Amino acid sequence: MKGFIESITPQLIQWRRDFHQYPELGFTEYVTSYKLAKELERLGFTIHIGKDVMKQEARLGIPSSKELQFYESKAIKHGVEKDILDRMQGGMTGVIATWNTGRPGDHVALRFDIDALPIQETRETSHFPHQQGFTSLNEQVMHACGHDGHMTIGLGVASFISDYHERLCGKFTLLFQPAEEGGRGAKAITANGWLDDVDYFYSGHIGIESLPVGTVAATVDGFLASSKLNVTFKGVSSHAGMKPELGKNALLAASSAVSSLYGISRHSGGITRINVGKMMAGSGRNIIPADAYLEIETRGETEEMNSYMQNEAKRIIKASAMMQGVEYQIEAVGQTEQLKGSNELISSIEIACDKGKYIEQVWPVALVSGSEDASFMMNRVQANNGLATYMLFGTPLDFPHHHPSFDFQEDVLPVAVEALTNIIQTNHSNK
Amino acid sequence: MKGFIESITPQLIQWRRDFHQYPELGFTEYVTSYKLAKELERLGFTIHIGKDVMKQEARLGIPSSKELQFYESKAIKHGVEKDILDRMQGGMTGVIATWNTGRPGDHVALRFDIDALPIQETRETSHFPHQQGFTSLNEQVMHACGHDGHMTIGLGVASFISDYHERLCGKFTLLFQPAEEGGRGAKAITANGWLDDVDYFYSGHIGIESLPVGTVAATVDGFLASSKLNVTFKGVSSHAGMKPELGKNALLAASSAVSSLYGISRHSGGITRINVGKMMAGSGRNIIPADAYLEIETRGETEEMNSYMQNEAKRIIKASAMMQGVEYQIEAVGQTEQLKGSNELISSIEIACDKGKYIEQVWPVALVSGSEDASFMMNRVQANNGLATYMLFGTPLDFPHHHPSFDFQEDVLPVAVEALTNIIQTNHSNK
Amino acid sequence: MKGFIESITPQLIQWRRDFHQYPELGFTEYVTSYKLAKELERLGFTIHIGKDVMKQEARLGIPSSKELQFYESKAIKHGVEKDILDRMQGGMTGVIATWNTGRPGDHVALRFDIDALPIQETRETSHFPHQQGFTSLNEQVMHACGHDGHMTIGLGVASFISDYHERLCGKFTLLFQPAEEGGRGAKAITANGWLDDVDYFYSGHIGIESLPVGTVAATVDGFLASSKLNVTFKGVSSHAGMKPELGKNALLAASSAVSSLYGISRHSGGITRINVGKMMAGSGRNIIPADAYLEIETRGETEEMNSYMQNEAKRIIKASAMMQGVEYQIEAVGQTEQLKGSNELISSIEIACDKGKYIEQVWPVALVSGSEDASFMMNRVQANNGLATYMLFGTPLDFPHHHPSFDFQEDVLPVAVEALTNIIQTNHSNK
Amino acid sequence: MKGFIESITPQLIQWRRDFHQYPELGFTEYVTSYKLAKELERLGFTIHIGKDVMKQEARLGIPSSKELQFYESKAIKHGVEKDILDRMQGGMTGVIATWNTGRPGDHVALRFDIDALPIQETRETSHFPHQQGFTSLNEQVMHACGHDGHMTIGLGVASFISDYHERLCGKFTLLFQPAEEGGRGAKAITANGWLDDVDYFYSGHIGIESLPVGTVAATVDGFLASSKLNVTFKGVSSHAGMKPELGKNALLAASSAVSSLYGISRHSGGITRINVGKMMAGSGRNIIPADAYLEIETRGETEEMNSYMQNEAKRIIKASAMMQGVEYQIEAVGQTEQLKGSNELISSIEIACDKGKYIEQVWPVALVSGSEDASFMMNRVQANNGLATYMLFGTPLDFPHHHPSFDFQEDVLPVAVEALTNIIQTNHSNK
Repeated sequence: MKGFIESITPQLIQWRRDFHQYPELGFTEYVTSYKLAKELERLGFTIHIGKDVMKQEARLGIPSSKELQFYESKAIKHGVEKDILDRMQGGMTGVIATWNTGRPGDHVALRFDIDALPIQETRETSHFPHQQGFTSLNEQVMHACGHDGHMTIGLGVASFISDYHERLCGKFTLLFQPAEEGGRGAKAITANGWLDDVDYFYSGHIGIESLPVGTVAATVDGFLASSKLNVTFKGVSSHAGMKPELGKNALLAASSAVSSLYGISRHSGGITRINVGKMMAGSGRNIIPADAYLEIETRGETEEMNSYMQNEAKRIIKASAMMQGVEYQIEAVGQTEQLKGSNELISSIEIACDKGKYIEQVWPVALVSGSEDASFMMNRVQANNGLATYMLFGTPLDFPHHHPSFDFQEDVLPVAVEALTNIIQTNHSNK
Repeated sequence: MKGFIESITPQLIQWRRDFHQYPELGFTEYVTSYKLAKELERLGFTIHIGKDVMKQEARLGIPSSKELQFYESKAIKHGVEKDILDRMQGGMTGVIATWNTGRPGDHVALRFDIDALPIQETRETSHFPHQQGFTSLNEQVMHACGHDGHMTIGLGVASFISDYHERLCGKFTLLFQPAEEGGRGAKAITANGWLDDVDYFYSGHIGIESLPVGTVAATVDGFLASSKLNVTFKGVSSHAGMKPELGKNALLAASSAVSSLYGISRHSGGITRINVGKMMAGSGRNIIPADAYLEIETRGETEEMNSYMQNEAKRIIKASAMMQGVEYQIEAVGQTEQLKGSNELISSIEIACDKGKYIEQVWPVALVSGSEDASFMMNRVQANNGLATYMLFGTPLDFPHHHPSFDFQEDVLPVAVEALTNIIQTNHSNK
Repeated sequence: MKGFIESITPQLIQWRRDFHQYPELGFTEYVTSYKLAKELERLGFTIHIGKDVMKQEARLGIPSSKELQFYESKAIKHGVEKDILDRMQGGMTGVIATWNTGRPGDHVALRFDIDALPIQETRETSHFPHQQGFTSLNEQVMHACGHDGHMTIGLGVASFISDYHERLCGKFTLLFQPAEEGGRGAKAITANGWLDDVDYFYSGHIGIESLPVGTVAATVDGFLASSKLNVTFKGVSSHAGMKPELGKNALLAASSAVSSLYGISRHSGGITRINVGKMMAGSGRNIIPADAYLEIETRGETEEMNSYMQNEAKRIIKASAMMQGVEYQIEAVGQTEQLKGSNELISSIEIACDKGKYIEQVWPVALVSGSEDASFMMNRVQANNGLATYMLFGTPLDFPHHHPSFDFQEDVLPVAVEALTNIIQTNHSNK
Repeated sequence: MKGFIESITPQLIQWRRDFHQYPELGFTEYVTSYKLAKELERLGFTIHIGKDVMKQEARLGIPSSKELQFYESKAIKHGVEKDILDRMQGGMTGVIATWNTGRPGDHVALRFDIDALPIQETRETSHFPHQQGFTSLNEQVMHACGHDGHMTIGLGVASFISDYHERLCGKFTLLFQPAEEGGRGAKAITANGWLDDVDYFYSGHIGIESLPVGTVAATVDGFLASSKLNVTFKGVSSHAGMKPELGKNALLAASSAVSSLYGISRHSGGITRINVGKMMAGSGRNIIPADAYLEIETRGETEEMNSYMQNEAKRIIKASAMMQGVEYQIEAVGQTEQLKGSNELISSIEIACDKGKYIEQVWPVALVSGSEDASFMMNRVQANNGLATYMLFGTPLDFPHHHPSFDFQEDVLPVAVEALTNIIQTNHSNK
């Protein structure tokens, strides 16, 4: 076993660097999904793509058809086979790989997210991917959250299952999920029933906290329920000097909304959050602005807290539109649920990881914040009395996630593969 | 004389369509200026370019050096001669053409603006330039305010002066001004002293009001003094879920500013206006926004009214920044003065235009609104006891100025040339 | 005639000081109306009170029944006769006095307003009413706008008509109007038809501009149409520490409304105004405020401009309520129309006043601002082709109208009586 | 002992009803303090009043000298002795009563608050004080938070100490504190050193939670640190129709402040609160408002959280003033610290209360919210290694605290006296 990790490490590095060079945004991971499918097929897994992966209409925040077509053409140039691309058409990306040992045992699912971010990677010479020559080749897109590492870990785990399947029992489902950023993809996979009979669910993240390589958290607590809303206000433009009174000012409506949104009352029941992360409004200086666009996120410690925030936000947006006599539209483009790892898993993970060569320390629970759409999967598993966890794999971070200079230490990759394969071997094999 | 207009009309059309195909933004009119200079030189005028035209530091709203360099490279590809480009380098565009008859007489100046707008021209097949195959060849740039016509009229007048100079007396200065949009260029020409000894000043606009071709207004009243301000707020970003309190919210500061700016008190002394025409703020949905950008315009019936608005606006912006603990910067990127045509000119223009073959009707004064930086020139001329007017040349408009489908009837070109050359012949010749 | 002014002057002073000591608020002028009725009856006029004066439901901003009852009880103590008080009950104050000469001629109406303001008169020893011992005896109520003078002038004119009726022709209607402050009474008198067949209408004000005594303006221009609105927001209170999310914040709704109201767009059609003059909201520091109250005034150069402002304001108030999920109510408590004196009257007034002993100078038109509900009367008269004017009677003002130290020079009283009686004698007598 | 409670109960009821009839606002408890002093003196305590009680300048939110004088004159009419009143002059109310047993032992302090609220007591016939004829005789002042009960309990405890002093050991300090409402008095008593050497500190509240009579909480957790701020904005008034631009709008500044205050960012470190509980602004409808007044409260789970809120609030208020060019003043009128009962006391209180005849149930810790200035005393005691608790004494509440119909069941009084005297007897006697 230990030999397995050692021997696969060079391959992990190679996978990771390749993924890093070809980052793709949520629901446009055509090339990435194709590569994953090919690799997983090679390893002997049964491959599911396209409509088998996600319930089409349960996806959130789908790119415009113009954008999808642009990336689909690009995929063809990158050598994605026509029939595979056809099945993924319209943003139906992601891959699910299954392996049935044929022996009685648990249904174990593992989830790895695969999308990148709309960030231009730094050109600083001190940036490690730059030094090693594997920076992003896609303009304005970057793996700045470590999902290139996550996929790599997933392929490492898949290799292990493939190599050692004779010692294992039960079924394994590897979920390579698109569009985690913005909470857009997990809900649609869950809606297709993939998690309905899962007994054990493992997922996780590298980084988050800046921990030393070798440190692993068995589970986390603190992810918040969240809703991501895009809002557009549509007014009437008019010459601001000649006929200001004929305008219906969308920018002013949006500004009123912003002021009032941050003023939503705190809730005595627990943590709440609101943010207007982006605003774009108006056309020219001397025109009463007819258009405004806002990107909003609400969060709550529980679904109930988040619903409170969301309902308040929706009423405020409606009222702000009325304030200026403009029209408005609210689009739900992402959602996460609150997330709480199953405490029952902690000790078995601690035991499994204890045998690690690369793992140095296991934290039982890490307190994190933020939002994760793996929550949809975990909550479904837990609802059916399965156990689910979200682990952390430590790596020091010189720059935070989503930063143009984000990078992680590649040593975390064998640590994570060791943790997950030790768990599989310890808990889901014949021993 | 009437023969002159008739014979030059085909040339007018040709000039206009050529200018229309190669629109350039304010202070990047390298190709346009070069073409004008060549043509005016050919006609026998003395040409002034570069630092002779404008006082460099009196310009407002200069593009970034990156943009300037981009357009300068492009100009070389378009065949602009190196030594001429060198003199215009850094956005020192525009051309002034002078003709001294050698005979005693008035100093007459005429002004024509030459810049285009950051608008993508429509591709509708019903659009006249499209039908005739002369739509803009520059992406995202369009002559959507008729300055292509203005330059054409200027060349028509120049041809007349060249042809008939022996009958004329005094001096003629033709000001082909860059960067009228946003009120950015006229001040810098004025600051170079070009208007200091002018006795008669003529300028004008095609369109504005949707009048029939053949209608001319001798002068206008109602242009407002204005200031164009760009505002940036600089805060501190932070994760909106994990550490919202560490952020300093620039978007929220900008929203407060917007609400308060529109609330600047009306002034009992006269007309005032305020508009925030554009806002761009924030980066990602879950990040406390660290950046915000506003485009603002204040106006007033008089300089005093506009100063009141500008001072109120500046205090509000400062206070809005303090409200969120963010930093701010205000950049003055454009300015116009109030403008009032000299009534003394009305009757002489009416008399001169009465002889027109193309002119059908002369309005003494048209009431307009909006802002014009010809105001700087006119106010300088009037301050030295010269007479100045801003005329209108009627053309029906199916779409307003600054619209992607804007167009004018080319018949207005000979009308305008006839009006201006009749005035020159009637008032500034030996008769 | 000149003897008349001289001989009545001591009486004018006495009337004025008596009125000044017993100021009464709009629609509670029970004592004032009673005294006027008695005096006018004594002079031989036919007296109209109660429902004869005003259309009950056309009044605006009526005090609460509790307040009305309070002042009615007080009126009894002041000796107002029971049957007269009964007719005025419920705020039906004011007196109209008519005199028919029996000779053919014009119907001439004059209007004098009679109400005071909710202001505590100063106790400064330099205040003239204090020195002469005639300051207000009613706590928190003061004649701080000169209506005590207006009534006095009205009685002076009445005395003249009574004394000289044999020389006069036509009919005379003297309107002693309640509740001018806030624009609440004139509409209801007009609604009763009193102005329907009036040929000549005279009204006016002492002061306004700080002119020397002896200066008279024949008419004015510039009064704005206006609407006075009281707004209440009704939310839900909650403990601000324990359960803030259960509150519905009326104070916050009102604050949003205020910010947006001042931001109503300027109108290219002419002068507009908006003011929120008063706000009271909330109960205790640690309670989410459940109540808020605003006093608002909109104005416009024309009815149309004012309607624009009023409609914008109403939509904003509704939206502000929705913003916080609170209820709201808008009460129209006052209204004035735009007002323009009939220019046809200017020369006849100039001629009539030329003969004055006390009058030193006549201005044809004074430009004023503010609002006046005499506008309802004037517009009705003008609509029926009658002529109407609003005059000014000069007096220096050390303190502005509505100030606790407001006072006027009593010398203005004979000037005003002379002006009005000269006009009557010149234009409405047998000569 | 049980006989003591039984025998004193009628006296408790009588004290309570008398206090209820004569409620006095914070720092004007002249009559109340006088009565307490007389009663405590009668029981044999050493009495401390005036400057001995509080550090004068450490008080917060002192009434105006006009108000203080008004209540001082009233106190004389109520029979308060001149020399005692002189010592309390200027709002130096409150009484501290000490008893030294002369035997070695702990220094035990108990605190009872004595002030009432600016609320008009209901006249509903169903209101118990009304039925029994002991409603407030002071207009607009009411014991609506149960401090009449607290003082009564204090006198009950004092009676016990007086009766049983021979069995007790150590020293007893009874703090009858003025101005608890708004967090204004405790800090000034603490500043005088009274808590510096206290070993055991007991305080508490009747009600809060609507618990059955007989239930007692040994201590509480959850009181928030808080700051109470009064804010005034001072602008310039101007006629809103004639010269709006000359005004500096204090109401608009206050409205901006309100909107921004509620928008202060949530804090990841814990609970925060902000409320603007009251706003009064402006004078008349047609005057640009020159004055505005706000009552604000910030809260935080810790001092640090509350400081964050307070600092944000102060910056926003300053910026809002600048927004309109008005002046502002912030007055700190109250403060509380976070409060956490000493858990070490819980079991000894449980044991002591176990012997009660009236006590039925003891909760170890009740989770409450709100703010309490006993926190200053408790934090001082705990800082010096003393133990401090804040107890609850259950009573059902038909109406919440601070409601015009607030009332408690008088049966809670013997329960509370029993709890406190049992504690004294069990823990601070020779046994």
